[in-house]
Amino acid sequence: MPAYPAAIEQLISQLIRLPGVGRKTAERYALAWLRQGDTALNPLMTAVQAVQQQIGLCQQCYNYTTTERCDICSNPQRDQQLVCVVADSAAVFAFEQIGDYHGTYHVLGGTINPLDGITADQLRLPQLVDRVQQVKVQEIIIGTNPDHPGEATALAVIAALQPCQVKITRLARGLPAGSDIEFADDVTLGEALKDRRTI
Amino acid sequence: MPAYPAAIEQLISQLIRLPGVGRKTAERYALAWLRQGDTALNPLMTAVQAVQQQIGLCQQCYNYTTTERCDICSNPQRDQQLVCVVADSAAVFAFEQIGDYHGTYHVLGGTINPLDGITADQLRLPQLVDRVQQVKVQEIIIGTNPDHPGEATALAVIAALQPCQVKITRLARGLPAGSDIEFADDVTLGEALKDRRTI
Repeated sequence: MPAYPAAIEQLISQLIRLPGVGRKTAERYALAWLRQGDTALNPLMTAVQAVQQQIGLCQQCYNYTTTERCDICSNPQRDQQLVCVVADSAAVFAFEQIGDYHGTYHVLGGTINPLDGITADQLRLPQLVDRVQQVKVQEIIIGTNPDHPGEATALAVIAALQPCQVKITRLARGLPAGSDIEFADDVTLGEALKDRRTI
Repeated sequence: MPAYPAAIEQLISQLIRLPGVGRKTAERYALAWLRQGDTALNPLMTAVQAVQQQIGLCQQCYNYTTTERCDICSNPQRDQQLVCVVADSAAVFAFEQIGDYHGTYHVLGGTINPLDGITADQLRLPQLVDRVQQVKVQEIIIGTNPDHPGEATALAVIAALQPCQVKITRLARGLPAGSDIEFADDVTLGEALKDRRTI
């Protein structure tokens, strides 16, 4: 079976490793870059190099940062005693988009998922316990996804924090904004009903 | 609005330029690379560098190659007088996957699409005409997509080849293998009926 030249195949095989990218999509990406030539490849190289050289993990919350402590942790306006525990940096970004959260974060670095070989041992739980004890954290908000791996991770966080006697909360469950009751699934509608609020 | 560190934002903005990739997907790709660190970024850099240094265009068919003439054009088993005209290298790859085509190709380098600002002037039509005259090509197969941009491109190819008096053919239209007549669209079913074959 003839194929693309080896260098292109090599690039395709790197792109296939991205989440949700198969052979066809990887080909499409590689050819899009090739079509644009150096005008696309040079900035890409520069960006990858910059990421490799500059990006590290915040020493407190383990979010990506270019400094020892990230902008959030080093901001005196942020409440160090309110910590939202999330799986990864994408979740931090999502919470920051609201623009309304004034606490800090703790990035676990993954979600418990036996299929991907990720167990509780690989998450930054000891670091969280240390931080809760040192900074005298008042409240931990568990900000993991409301799915099976996220729930398993939440249970691991709760178990790890058992000796700390800190207040632990979780995100509200219910109907998402703009949704339709008719199409809501049983679990979501059940939770919306159970957690109903007086108005 | 707080965001990722500048280096990550820069990588995301490079990934957004890929076809079909939006902000969320670009973030996901960038974070996937970051999560794997140098084990993902180093091979990626090597692959991009190899592509930049090694890949050029075949002097005859304009397909990607590492040599002056691509493997297909320099293969004595391939029929130089049968040329399939395609939009890009992805189409060459698709035809080569059949393993049954013994002619050569001519890569136009795009499809006429006014929305993307691609006109007939930007396609490698003069090079095709030169080649048809020099190599005494017997048959040109138009291998553009059966959609509006592809049809416009096919018309431009036919117009350019007018003075050459070469036999021009196009790919058969009809029902794709494994499809269901019930779900076939009107145009496809109409073409399948019109181009029916005696068995």
